[in-house]
Amino acid sequence: MSGGSAGLSRRAVLGGAGAGLAVGAAGGAWGGRASAHAPADGVTLGAARVPFHAARQGGIVEPAQARVEWAAFDLLASTGRDGLAALLRGWSAAAARMAAGEPAAEGENQIALDAGPSSLTVTFGFGATLFDKAGLADRRPAALVELPAFPGDALDPARSGGDLWVQIGADDSLVAVHALRVLMRLATGLAAPRWLMSGFARTPGATPHPMTGRNLMGQVDGTNNPRPRDPDFDATVFAAGGDWMAGGSYAVLRRIRMLLEGWDTLPLDKQERIIGRRKSDGAPLSGGPDAVERTPVDLAATDGDGVLRIAPDAHVRVAAAASNGGAAMLRRGFSFHDGLLPDGSPDAGLLFAAYQADPARGFVPVQQRLSRGDGLSRYLRHEASALFAVPPGAPAGGYVGQQLLEG
Amino acid sequence: MSGGSAGLSRRAVLGGAGAGLAVGAAGGAWGGRASAHAPADGVTLGAARVPFHAARQGGIVEPAQARVEWAAFDLLASTGRDGLAALLRGWSAAAARMAAGEPAAEGENQIALDAGPSSLTVTFGFGATLFDKAGLADRRPAALVELPAFPGDALDPARSGGDLWVQIGADDSLVAVHALRVLMRLATGLAAPRWLMSGFARTPGATPHPMTGRNLMGQVDGTNNPRPRDPDFDATVFAAGGDWMAGGSYAVLRRIRMLLEGWDTLPLDKQERIIGRRKSDGAPLSGGPDAVERTPVDLAATDGDGVLRIAPDAHVRVAAAASNGGAAMLRRGFSFHDGLLPDGSPDAGLLFAAYQADPARGFVPVQQRLSRGDGLSRYLRHEASALFAVPPGAPAGGYVGQQLLEG
Repeated sequence: MSGGSAGLSRRAVLGGAGAGLAVGAAGGAWGGRASAHAPADGVTLGAARVPFHAARQGGIVEPAQARVEWAAFDLLASTGRDGLAALLRGWSAAAARMAAGEPAAEGENQIALDAGPSSLTVTFGFGATLFDKAGLADRRPAALVELPAFPGDALDPARSGGDLWVQIGADDSLVAVHALRVLMRLATGLAAPRWLMSGFARTPGATPHPMTGRNLMGQVDGTNNPRPRDPDFDATVFAAGGDWMAGGSYAVLRRIRMLLEGWDTLPLDKQERIIGRRKSDGAPLSGGPDAVERTPVDLAATDGDGVLRIAPDAHVRVAAAASNGGAAMLRRGFSFHDGLLPDGSPDAGLLFAAYQADPARGFVPVQQRLSRGDGLSRYLRHEASALFAVPPGAPAGGYVGQQLLEG
Repeated sequence: MSGGSAGLSRRAVLGGAGAGLAVGAAGGAWGGRASAHAPADGVTLGAARVPFHAARQGGIVEPAQARVEWAAFDLLASTGRDGLAALLRGWSAAAARMAAGEPAAEGENQIALDAGPSSLTVTFGFGATLFDKAGLADRRPAALVELPAFPGDALDPARSGGDLWVQIGADDSLVAVHALRVLMRLATGLAAPRWLMSGFARTPGATPHPMTGRNLMGQVDGTNNPRPRDPDFDATVFAAGGDWMAGGSYAVLRRIRMLLEGWDTLPLDKQERIIGRRKSDGAPLSGGPDAVERTPVDLAATDGDGVLRIAPDAHVRVAAAASNGGAAMLRRGFSFHDGLLPDGSPDAGLLFAAYQADPARGFVPVQQRLSRGDGLSRYLRHEASALFAVPPGAPAGGYVGQQLLEG
């Protein structure tokens, strides 16, 4: 019908003929949680796009989009290595088209027809359990091992792990949900959905200028994130070496429910003491009234009575000790609010995601410290956990995972 | 602490001193589902605001925001009429402040501190069950009766009904979720949450220009919505008469799950036949290739073989017959996607909302026809239902429901 081709040409104009804005790692902000990223003047939010084909996968260093969908899949027994390669080829091709603002050729249901890609990114990851099932046991990276148990963990296996992970981020919810439906349909007969999670961050333009975001506790969250201009940024976030994971990263995911009813009734000064930062602007409590968010934390500072300004169990102190004061990983989390639990409390919190070159030097030692000594832990429940190897990006014509499957 | 007052002054600048953009019914689009509404040049999405104090409540005629939260509450037995008045006063005061971009005085957790109101609207409604509990049985409007059962209904009582309803819409999810948390805290000890639902529509700017939105089936949805310039708009949407509901409206809510796995595998021409419109642009199938979305539907048109172009059971034909060709109600729905059901199918669809002067002349006769003759019904499941009286708006200094409680 004529309507279909009219739709195609509209997409081609938006995605290819100059109206689109490509947002690369260099142009965007650096992925502090929920930092806002207003489109440049004259470019609509919808037209902003992140090219799928690049040295690194999207959805890692770009600012957190307004909406995220996480989906984990388990490979069907019949799929094997060839089926996995077919799935990844199909997924990459569809993701590349959708990221360019073009219809996904397969399973296109026209939901996204009118909109641009809205900064859509699609990120693929491989769980440790994938490799045996796909006949690739000898190619499993040494860094991809089960995360250790941490004190206080209350993990739901049905919402943890998975052979494959897909992260879809976009600044328009319909664009994100459409992409999820397309990728789920492409998995039919090859991989079964294991769990889905949905989260959100600031809509671009909601804040007057880009800034570090807040989590649902109201705290500024992500101040100490590494920045691409930091000299050790790549070494912190991306895997080195000459194997198929070179240029990839390891994603640790945690569904962290916040005990908001208890937290919200704490007095402000108690909340700030638990974090070690001022709630209004994120400035460290060690810095006095003139401190700003990025004022360095002074763990030795005391008040007139000799009491430490940053409490012994303050979140920032324990986190700093765990990472020797540096940034161990790139956090890129989203908030979630999934309604009420049977007891009436909110099923809400943080979809925590952290990217690092090696979890054994990133998330694992930090969480080992936090789970024991962090005063904030009393208000958090880690309910789901996963670790995925996030391969490098695919060049034009290639697909994510090609180095693993054809290397 | 100093941080708090700095935050207050930032809000005052955004919300009060000219940077904010007030979006009223006259200035906005008319609330077709998910019509996009990009902020005017130089006004950030966050600064756009809808005044809370007005003759009519917000969230009815304004364009659907990017995120919506629906919450139903049941009055506690101890609350009574005075407690209800206190709750509504507190809710209105907090909603007015948040809609102006100011912190809610009570329960402020600073989540929304950095953002503007992002077109926040808060809409309050009263269920039929409220009136007995609050000692107001003699003031229950005649139009506020239980909806009849419809063929095919599969309603979950736990997600239906409720004494009180709050609708929160905003173009930033954190702003919406923050407002929900504030209002839930204010209800503590007076009303208990009954159910929550969360939905989404287009983010402003996702489409290059405002247009009628698509639902998760991919269909353009909302073409025949009444428009404020229509001569009978007010009579269709808003209650007349001299009682406390004059200028209010009646909201019918339905959680309509879409059987997307079946729908998405239908060929395009079959989908279009079921709806009676072209999927790409919403043009009626009776109009030929040059038809556009708003070309009038010609129910008598036939093709060369004498076959009706709009099938006997097409959605547009059955809907038109039920409303005598006119618009019976103002629809303002949102999409939802809440993950997967135990059978692996998506728990996704439409949070349908329709506003009308009288449900007996709006939703009820339309749904009686649709539930029997609409070919689309095979792909829909009505899982929850509610009807709320939405009182008129509150003048400055007043609160929503004041005419009922103090009249």
